[in-house]
Amino acid sequence: MSAPIHAYAALEKGGRLQPFDYTPGPLGDEQVEITVSHCGICHSDLSVIDNEWGNAVYPLVAGHEAIGTIVEVGRSVKKVKVGQRVGIGWFSGSCMCCPQCLSGSQNLCATAEQTIVGRHGGFADRLRAHWAWATPLPERLDAAKAGPLFCGGITVFNPIVQLGIRPTDRVGVIGIGGLGHMALQFLNKWGCEVTAFSSSDSKKAEAISLGAHHVVNSRDKAQLDAIAGSLDFILSTVNVPLDWTAYLTALAPKGKLHLVGAVLAPISVGVFSLIGGQKSISGSPVGSPVTVAEMLDFAARHQIAPVTETFPFSKINEALDHLRSGKARYRIVLAH
Amino acid sequence: MSAPIHAYAALEKGGRLQPFDYTPGPLGDEQVEITVSHCGICHSDLSVIDNEWGNAVYPLVAGHEAIGTIVEVGRSVKKVKVGQRVGIGWFSGSCMCCPQCLSGSQNLCATAEQTIVGRHGGFADRLRAHWAWATPLPERLDAAKAGPLFCGGITVFNPIVQLGIRPTDRVGVIGIGGLGHMALQFLNKWGCEVTAFSSSDSKKAEAISLGAHHVVNSRDKAQLDAIAGSLDFILSTVNVPLDWTAYLTALAPKGKLHLVGAVLAPISVGVFSLIGGQKSISGSPVGSPVTVAEMLDFAARHQIAPVTETFPFSKINEALDHLRSGKARYRIVLAH
Repeated sequence: MSAPIHAYAALEKGGRLQPFDYTPGPLGDEQVEITVSHCGICHSDLSVIDNEWGNAVYPLVAGHEAIGTIVEVGRSVKKVKVGQRVGIGWFSGSCMCCPQCLSGSQNLCATAEQTIVGRHGGFADRLRAHWAWATPLPERLDAAKAGPLFCGGITVFNPIVQLGIRPTDRVGVIGIGGLGHMALQFLNKWGCEVTAFSSSDSKKAEAISLGAHHVVNSRDKAQLDAIAGSLDFILSTVNVPLDWTAYLTALAPKGKLHLVGAVLAPISVGVFSLIGGQKSISGSPVGSPVTVAEMLDFAARHQIAPVTETFPFSKINEALDHLRSGKARYRIVLAH
Repeated sequence: MSAPIHAYAALEKGGRLQPFDYTPGPLGDEQVEITVSHCGICHSDLSVIDNEWGNAVYPLVAGHEAIGTIVEVGRSVKKVKVGQRVGIGWFSGSCMCCPQCLSGSQNLCATAEQTIVGRHGGFADRLRAHWAWATPLPERLDAAKAGPLFCGGITVFNPIVQLGIRPTDRVGVIGIGGLGHMALQFLNKWGCEVTAFSSSDSKKAEAISLGAHHVVNSRDKAQLDAIAGSLDFILSTVNVPLDWTAYLTALAPKGKLHLVGAVLAPISVGVFSLIGGQKSISGSPVGSPVTVAEMLDFAARHQIAPVTETFPFSKINEALDHLRSGKARYRIVLAH
C-alpha cells in the first residue's frame, strides 16, 4: 500500500498534535505494514515531542506502543503473515547482521531503527516495521491493553531476564507509576518477595493489590535502614535523582541496583558501597524480540496487564495533557 | 603454643613500626597457627597503619599477605595439617554458617574477621587463622613470591571469576601497578585480548611484557575515543577519580566496568551511559577460599607471579617507606 497514512503530528517542539497525512512510499522487502487498532502513550513520546533528547525531527509522529493487524508484507518477510495481530514498540528495525543482532540482542544493535526517531510512529492509522520487530500477540491478550507492554512493559521485564533474577530472590521496585506498576506484577508472578518503594503512602494499598508484599516509604530513612542488606535486586523506574547509596545499602551481598528510568542527573555513589558486598549498578533499554515474545507469553499465562485509561485517537491532545499532568493511572491507550 | 609472638607494631597513627611481642592465648578449636616465612606489604597495610579507614587499633600489627608453615592446629580443624605450606590473606576467619558462608561466598560474610583489624597480623614470626582461610600453596609456587597473590592477586582474579569473563572477551585494565600488573598476567592467560590503560607512556613496554596486547594512554582522549564500544570488561585498579563515563563509552554492549581500587571520591556517571548498551558498574573485595585456591592453581599452571622486591623483616620501615614513595615495582615482600 502506498495510500496516504493518516497520522497526528507535532509540527514544532512541544506543539499540539495536528492531523497529518503522509505517503509512506514502497514497503521494504523485510517490512510489514499494520493497521493500528490501539497505541499506548509513553513518557518517551512527550520527551521526543518536546525534543528533550535532541533527536526530534518535525513534523513528528510519535507513538511506539502500537497494536494492530498485518495488512501487507514485503517479499522477504519471515515468520509473520497478513492477518496476524502484532505489536510494535520502541524499535521498528535492526540490521540483523551485527554480532548483537546475530546473538539475540537486537535491542542493542548500534543501528537499530527507533520507531519515532527520524521516521513516523504509531499515532496513525497504519505503521510499518521490520518483521522481526512485529511481535505476534498471544490470543489471550487484550489488544486494548497490550500496547504499553511493548515499551513500558518490556523495559521492566527485560532486566528480570537479563540479570537472571530468580524466584527465590527478594526484590524491590522504586516508583509505582507507568513502569513500576507493571514491574510489581511481573516480579510477583516471577515468584519473588516484592517490596515497593514509594514516596507516597497513598499508593500503599494499590501497590499491594499489584503484587507488592511490602511497601516502604522511601522518604522515611528509618524504614530504609530497617531493610539494610536484604534485597537481591532493586529496579528503579523513576526519573528523578535519589539517594542511590541508601538503596545500595538496602542490597544484600551480590545485590544489583538496576536503572531503567531516564534520570538526567548523574548517579553518584561511593565505591566502597559497591566493593564490600560485591554490588553493581546497571541499566538497560527495552528488550529483544525474543524477550518481548517471552514477556507476552508470561503476561498471558499470569493475566498480567497494565492498568490503562483509554482515549479515542480524536482526543489525542487531551490524552497527552492528561499524561503531562502526572495523573494518568497508569498508562494511557489511544483507540481507533 | 602460647609462647610470645614477635611482631612489628605501629604504636600510634602513622607511626614507624617497633618490635612488639604479644602472647596470643590459647589456639581456637578451628584455628591453625603458622610460622611466617614471608609477608607481602599491601597498600591497605599503610591505610590501616595511618587509620585512613577509621578502624585501626594500636598497637597495630599489619601484614595480610602471609606465607608460612602450619605448626599447630586446633581440635576441630579440617582439611589442612601441621607441616603444610599455606597463605593467609585479608580475611582470617568467617562464621561458616551464614547464607554467604554456606553458599561459598565466605568473603562476603558480614562478620568475617579481617587479619589486621582488631587483631594482630602477619608482620610477625607467627600468625593464626581459621583453617578455611589458610589456603595450601601448590608445590610449584615460590613462597618468596606467593604472598601478594593473597590480597592483591585475589582482588583482581576474583572479578574475572565472579563476572564470568570469557576467554573470547576483550578486556581492559586501568592502572599498571601492584594490582594491575597481576591483572594483565591473569587476563592474558585467561585467553582474553588485553588492553592496558596507563597515564604514563613509560610503562608501555612493561605492560606488554606482562601480557597486554595493546596499551592506551588514558590521558589521550583520541586514543580512548578510538576504542569506543569495543571492550567487554574493564577492571579499574587505581584509587584516584577518573572520567568514568569515558570508560563506559569504551565498553561494548553488555560491557562491565568493575572497580577494585579504593577510590575515596564518589563515582559519578550519566544514567544513559548505562541504559543504552545495558552496561554496569560494579565492585568486589577479595575472593572466597575456593576462588583463592583456583587462583593459586591457575597461577602455578601458567607461571603467573607478582613482580616483587624483597626486604628482610629487620628493614620493615625502609620497606614501608619504599612503598609510600610510589616506587615499588610492583609488590614488596618481607622475608625472615
